[in-house]
Amino acid sequence: MKIVYSEDHRLHFPQGELFGGEFVTPFERPSRVEYILRELKRRKMTELMPPAKLDMKPVRKVHDKGFLEFLETAWAEWTAAGYRGEIVPTGFAARGMGPNKPRFIDGKVGYYCHSMETCITAGTRDAALASASVAQTAQKLVASGARSAFALCRPPGHHAHHDMYGGYCFLNNAALAAQELRDRGFARVAMLDVDYHHGNGTQEIFYARDDVLFVSIHGTPDTEYPYFLGYADERGIDAGEGFTRNFPLVAGTGWDDYRVALAAALEEIGRYGADALVVSLGVDTFEGDPISAFKLGSRHFPQIGAMIAGLRLPTVLVLEGGYAVEEIGENVVGVLTAF
Amino acid sequence: MKIVYSEDHRLHFPQGELFGGEFVTPFERPSRVEYILRELKRRKMTELMPPAKLDMKPVRKVHDKGFLEFLETAWAEWTAAGYRGEIVPTGFAARGMGPNKPRFIDGKVGYYCHSMETCITAGTRDAALASASVAQTAQKLVASGARSAFALCRPPGHHAHHDMYGGYCFLNNAALAAQELRDRGFARVAMLDVDYHHGNGTQEIFYARDDVLFVSIHGTPDTEYPYFLGYADERGIDAGEGFTRNFPLVAGTGWDDYRVALAAALEEIGRYGADALVVSLGVDTFEGDPISAFKLGSRHFPQIGAMIAGLRLPTVLVLEGGYAVEEIGENVVGVLTAF
Repeated sequence: MKIVYSEDHRLHFPQGELFGGEFVTPFERPSRVEYILRELKRRKMTELMPPAKLDMKPVRKVHDKGFLEFLETAWAEWTAAGYRGEIVPTGFAARGMGPNKPRFIDGKVGYYCHSMETCITAGTRDAALASASVAQTAQKLVASGARSAFALCRPPGHHAHHDMYGGYCFLNNAALAAQELRDRGFARVAMLDVDYHHGNGTQEIFYARDDVLFVSIHGTPDTEYPYFLGYADERGIDAGEGFTRNFPLVAGTGWDDYRVALAAALEEIGRYGADALVVSLGVDTFEGDPISAFKLGSRHFPQIGAMIAGLRLPTVLVLEGGYAVEEIGENVVGVLTAF
Repeated sequence: MKIVYSEDHRLHFPQGELFGGEFVTPFERPSRVEYILRELKRRKMTELMPPAKLDMKPVRKVHDKGFLEFLETAWAEWTAAGYRGEIVPTGFAARGMGPNKPRFIDGKVGYYCHSMETCITAGTRDAALASASVAQTAQKLVASGARSAFALCRPPGHHAHHDMYGGYCFLNNAALAAQELRDRGFARVAMLDVDYHHGNGTQEIFYARDDVLFVSIHGTPDTEYPYFLGYADERGIDAGEGFTRNFPLVAGTGWDDYRVALAAALEEIGRYGADALVVSLGVDTFEGDPISAFKLGSRHFPQIGAMIAGLRLPTVLVLEGGYAVEEIGENVVGVLTAF
């Protein structure tokens, strides 16, 4: 299997994540990737490929211009304002607020952010661009005929909306891959999000489109992050009606129920007649995950991989979450081995 | 002048406020009130009156039922979830999110909060209720014939929407006073908000109503908190169209320009034909305020008081912001002396 990787993910390593009213060491941390690399080495899957230089044109198709400019200048504006911590908003564009975009950085952050746990640092933008380039290169390999490719990237992407960051995500790597597959001639692209947390960003980006099917299996937002999207009655709008499909599962779900939901999700993709697949690969469905509540064992991840591979579609797998750091390698590579 | 005060404000004293990506000691702190009490004593204005027991009926007219229940149970649910810090949300109901209210406390906080700087603690609810009772009692004094009364209350209220807290505010004390004046037979109530920060909560509560005029002079939200409301083109909707009037002023505004805006604001109130007035009295327009940027001197606050008193209306003054703690007494009492 082709694996694309860039060391530049290390440029994004906030010192703090807001959790339960305290700053803790972020669950989404560089060592996650180190453990995956270690497992790949152990299994002699050592042919890593660096990403090509990022082509911004497709990035601009899935993200807002003002948002991209914000990511570019946020750190400089924040430090120029005299703030000493990592970037966290104060006031934000909550329910009932007006549509104006403030000019001052603290207000801009509130405008472009949807979740507080995610700090922006000096290196965040470069890491996010590198992460996107990894997904882009993996996509190119598949578009050029490879059966599958894995984008070993961080920061992750599926919580990034077209103009909002949050949930550890800045640029939506998986959405970028799907958009580019469309641009390269694949007529119907399916996206399968198996991260524990709903891929609200991906859903939002393609919500009104029928050329990209978005299917997600995740902890119910009624009790799990991101709380405000991922309910079963969200099915798309306008041309996109029927092309979003959510499978929210209760906290505590184990393999038996998960397998049924995954089979139903794969059936949706089959029915859609997809000619390419992008997988948002989170392994925080693992029973030992510190911020999630499904009960999958490491032995189930090869089965997940086999079920997805059974679609026999050209497939780009893009790394998302998974915070049980010591087991993340076994769980991620467990999925990959099916391809 | 009648002054209503409750010591229960001390029950709300978070240890942290998010500012520039760090937890700092909150600018909105109990000592603000101590300095006002000291100045009142110095001027022999020592007839403080305790509030009567809070009548919740009018509170329920300005606040949402679910929001009031949330304030009641938030701390117990937060600590039961195992969180160890003061209450701060993670994900929130940002632009483009769905309408669902999550069941889990972390999601609920994101639903009911609009600003991150404001922590909820064990004593916050009781302090907020006490603060509302102070405003309610001050209002009753005026409704019963007193020319004016001052509600020496905290936490403040004008950033509290009908179903959102933030900006140090939980229950909207000034809105409560205005609502009760209406209920007691005053036909047209005017609200004048002279806090440095736009009274977004008050505006939102009365935005579609023509029986309460809301007029605010404040730092432009383009660069100042709360960023997403307080623009000049916000004039009310439906029956309320024309009954909201904002005077956003640029950072650095001094007395000459401020006086012109205040005169125009008072003219609006005169034109409206108000028969009672509620003043959201913030003195963070002071040049020494640590989080604001107008340039008023202490000598200007008696002039502000005199200009407002010139309306010759039954007037309830309700304490809002002001964070230059050592000067807050002189500045607040400077306004009061005109009444």
